[in-house]
Amino acid sequence: MSRVYNFSAGPAALPAEVMRRAQAEFRDCNGTGMSAMEMSHRSKAFIAIAEQAEADLRELLVIPANYKVLFLQGGATMQFGAIPLNLLRGKNTADYFRTGAWSEKAVKEAQRFCAVNLAVDTQAGNYTDIPDASEWKFSKDAAYVHYTPNETIHGVEFHDVPEAGDIPLVADMSSNILSRPIEVSKFGVIYAGAQKNIGPAGLCVVIIRDDLLGYMPEGYPSLLDYTAHAKAGSMLNTPPTYAWYFAGLVFQWLKDEGGIAAMEARNIQKSRKLYDFIDASDFYSNPVAKHCRSRMNVPFTLAKPELDKLFVEEADKAGLKNLEGHRSVGGMRASIYNAMPEAGVDALIAFMQEFEKRHG
Amino acid sequence: MSRVYNFSAGPAALPAEVMRRAQAEFRDCNGTGMSAMEMSHRSKAFIAIAEQAEADLRELLVIPANYKVLFLQGGATMQFGAIPLNLLRGKNTADYFRTGAWSEKAVKEAQRFCAVNLAVDTQAGNYTDIPDASEWKFSKDAAYVHYTPNETIHGVEFHDVPEAGDIPLVADMSSNILSRPIEVSKFGVIYAGAQKNIGPAGLCVVIIRDDLLGYMPEGYPSLLDYTAHAKAGSMLNTPPTYAWYFAGLVFQWLKDEGGIAAMEARNIQKSRKLYDFIDASDFYSNPVAKHCRSRMNVPFTLAKPELDKLFVEEADKAGLKNLEGHRSVGGMRASIYNAMPEAGVDALIAFMQEFEKRHG
Repeated sequence: MSRVYNFSAGPAALPAEVMRRAQAEFRDCNGTGMSAMEMSHRSKAFIAIAEQAEADLRELLVIPANYKVLFLQGGATMQFGAIPLNLLRGKNTADYFRTGAWSEKAVKEAQRFCAVNLAVDTQAGNYTDIPDASEWKFSKDAAYVHYTPNETIHGVEFHDVPEAGDIPLVADMSSNILSRPIEVSKFGVIYAGAQKNIGPAGLCVVIIRDDLLGYMPEGYPSLLDYTAHAKAGSMLNTPPTYAWYFAGLVFQWLKDEGGIAAMEARNIQKSRKLYDFIDASDFYSNPVAKHCRSRMNVPFTLAKPELDKLFVEEADKAGLKNLEGHRSVGGMRASIYNAMPEAGVDALIAFMQEFEKRHG
Repeated sequence: MSRVYNFSAGPAALPAEVMRRAQAEFRDCNGTGMSAMEMSHRSKAFIAIAEQAEADLRELLVIPANYKVLFLQGGATMQFGAIPLNLLRGKNTADYFRTGAWSEKAVKEAQRFCAVNLAVDTQAGNYTDIPDASEWKFSKDAAYVHYTPNETIHGVEFHDVPEAGDIPLVADMSSNILSRPIEVSKFGVIYAGAQKNIGPAGLCVVIIRDDLLGYMPEGYPSLLDYTAHAKAGSMLNTPPTYAWYFAGLVFQWLKDEGGIAAMEARNIQKSRKLYDFIDASDFYSNPVAKHCRSRMNVPFTLAKPELDKLFVEEADKAGLKNLEGHRSVGGMRASIYNAMPEAGVDALIAFMQEFEKRHG
């Protein structure tokens, strides 16, 4: 089958140019006579790949020198536990923003290790809005403040970085990292599962400020300890080498395409087109408050929910894949990460128009 | 460069036929119009791949129905912690065989969670032998017995499964799984990092007997809990999908090649050739007792250790890659997993002969 438009929320479509390059050098990477997948992680060939990937990520996100960049396993979910373990630093409370399904999971995992204060909680409103900062309720002695800048399932995105004062701000950036410029110095820790905007599933990037290292308590598995990973250059054990290599290809592609600012311009354009179309329609709707709609994940519903299944089936036949909404929310969802070209959004809108004409 | 013979200990050479197939379908897997890497782990297309991989592994290893097969992240090192957490079941002691660098690491990690009794310890002899079973010293109340059937760094392999009575036997089979038939019912848990005989780094297969599930204590990260993974079909969070897919290709290749018995015959043949050559030489030697030499990892030294660097360099130029020994042991090491063809071993022996002639 010819390449399709894949709207999956993650693992997700990867940049077509990167896929072509990775395929071309799949069995002979950089003239080594072997795949990146077959390289020893201690070999010069792989170390060069790993270091270049980190350098390119640092350049793209303008990461200051006092931050370590780790390439780990376990996905964001493993960090849900590693964050309290590494960052509580003897304290017993952390502040969390609960603004969707993923921050809800982060909260549950943190509660295994500390008291969680919900500084923001929009569960009662089905996670469709973010209240004004005047309504946030920080605790007095939180070890850190955790939030989820983009909620993959509910399609809610923070368009500004919350002000947390001197308390380290921790962000699960899994679904919007590299989609827009960020000021890294505002954060204590940024982490992101790779399978949306970075590369294959099985890799998680953690960016952590130096002064937050050194606090892991005893009695837990060594691979949860960011300090040990930092000392070992993310090679405390065998890292997910192919995913790391592939992430490096994505970082090079981002640089070739004009970097993060260029990505943001495209993402604004793509998401605006889709939201404008939905808002102008009586047949489609999006439940999220306009000021916090996600540029990455666009959930939408039909005026006739009994047509959901048909919509997904017909879209699939038209080469528009994985548009079913998350099982916890229903309806439809279009994930339009960096790798989704504007032509994919245009094709989706054309299909939606045509579907509405026939069934609206 | 043309494909080389890669003797890396892991990540390691993968079967040439599998590499060709994976490359061919890299951007369009099974007619879906997308890469296996881009598939949602919840999609029908990926679920079919995942289930087939498990079914093929079950068939290859003849895994009984009362064992769960998990596809996890974190490598064997993560299991070094997960094993005591899941298997102590209220007890406070575990028996370990310390027979090389990897079991040494497993012991250190287990000591974070329990008292470790070294039922076997060959550290004083530099890990070059395994004592007779009459000398093993089991404790009276161990929760489990842990051993490392093949020591990747020291080249020591158990050719029989230790008899542990009613105590669950746990094996880190990272470097010899799928290289020889095993009787799974003798084990409580088998685990194996993928990056030697299964596929890309970043995947770890865990095979666990049903009755050992349900004992994970509270207060630890949820992703360490085998029971939760088993309930979720290894999709508690996003699994390393591409590595899982690739492992499935390797399992299919193993079936096509005649299964594990055929692999064992090849591995006996390959390793015998190399050891026979080393033993017949005055220039090369292997320090391991003959009865417990590894079929997978063959460390060897030169009579003139000052030539080590030259050997590795000249071998590299001859297309024989990654022959340097582990930094903790020195000398050379040839890892000859399932994917290494006999022609690779022949080429290595020819090079060793020629090198000896010039420098011996």
